[in-house]
Amino acid sequence: MTKQTPSITVVAYRWVPPPVRGFVRDLRVRWALEEAGLPYNVKLIGAEEKSGTEYLQWQPFGQVPAYAQDGLKLFESGAIVLHVAEQSERLMPKDAAGRARVQAWVIAALNSIEPPVQQLASIDLFYSDAEWSKERRPQVEKAVKQRLAQLNAWLGDRDYLESAFSAGDLLMSTVLRNLQHTDLVAQHPALDAYVKRCEARPAFQKALQDQLADFVDEPMAA
Amino acid sequence: MTKQTPSITVVAYRWVPPPVRGFVRDLRVRWALEEAGLPYNVKLIGAEEKSGTEYLQWQPFGQVPAYAQDGLKLFESGAIVLHVAEQSERLMPKDAAGRARVQAWVIAALNSIEPPVQQLASIDLFYSDAEWSKERRPQVEKAVKQRLAQLNAWLGDRDYLESAFSAGDLLMSTVLRNLQHTDLVAQHPALDAYVKRCEARPAFQKALQDQLADFVDEPMAA
Repeated sequence: MTKQTPSITVVAYRWVPPPVRGFVRDLRVRWALEEAGLPYNVKLIGAEEKSGTEYLQWQPFGQVPAYAQDGLKLFESGAIVLHVAEQSERLMPKDAAGRARVQAWVIAALNSIEPPVQQLASIDLFYSDAEWSKERRPQVEKAVKQRLAQLNAWLGDRDYLESAFSAGDLLMSTVLRNLQHTDLVAQHPALDAYVKRCEARPAFQKALQDQLADFVDEPMAA
Repeated sequence: MTKQTPSITVVAYRWVPPPVRGFVRDLRVRWALEEAGLPYNVKLIGAEEKSGTEYLQWQPFGQVPAYAQDGLKLFESGAIVLHVAEQSERLMPKDAAGRARVQAWVIAALNSIEPPVQQLASIDLFYSDAEWSKERRPQVEKAVKQRLAQLNAWLGDRDYLESAFSAGDLLMSTVLRNLQHTDLVAQHPALDAYVKRCEARPAFQKALQDQLADFVDEPMAA
């Protein structure tokens, strides 16, 4: 018997600066594939490849992750996770109503929560010395706090956003991890426990270790 | 014969300031329903209702649109449009690969394009006099310009993002309309024609007129 070659390929970066490791978005796809039990290959790319004409036909914004499966080429971590979720009830139920509820949380994570979270993380990581950020940061933090309080209220004593772990929790918890450098999530015990519950899943731990292991130590010479 | 009551309800605002009319996100859902040929009721709400405990169980962030159909309650315009798209091949093909491609563009619109577009629109509409925005605006504009150039390159001589109009175009064009106060889209002839092509669709025009007609002239007394 020969070992079957996985039909799925995930594109990730060969190198990123150490503080960003463990946060690049191919983590979401790796996690989804681990939950679903689907084997995959990783294709590592560098700066030259990601802005090349060929790659832009696959990922129009020159980013990662990108994804291929049986001739289908995909981009956008949220869409790839949804496509994986179609293949596993561990990530999304099969009935139309259950699917729609999971999609609502996937898009809530990406469109209602991530934009303010990303703005705050960007200020703190890249613009903390800029004059404009001193005036702007409190406004962005206020917007983040409002969303976290609403999310915490929704969770109440639920373990997950719906009745079982889903692609919605996968996206939401990876978005909230971008606040790790603050105490904003920890201010809400239910929300804090929720993120830790998601991160404790073996499939997340495996995906995280695999992403970290794939980086090379030095950027490729240009 | 009695006229059938539509089984779909869309929640929208009873009043918003005039400059925002025609841009509130229930427009996306109305447009999708018009494309699909599905009749719907509109439920108009005001400031008190949107932050009420009952509504937050429907829309956890106290926003519009919210949506109900046959006992299913949904939120997030992108997720609602996807759910409508499941019901009409005018918005999404039925095959798994075609669906995944449409979902990729829906999420690209909401997570790769809308965040910088929204930041720019917010600066121009609400913070143009703030000291911080003078330093910050050029950076945000640069990010928007990069995304528009990439999108324009993808379009090339395509009429739509994929081979036919889909939920992806619906979301993408409503995101790009938020740059109407700038010439950033007009700088790219293919992209400009694309947005106009989407806006010229009869279903969009009907949805827009219906949203505008539903607003009352004055905010409700508190």
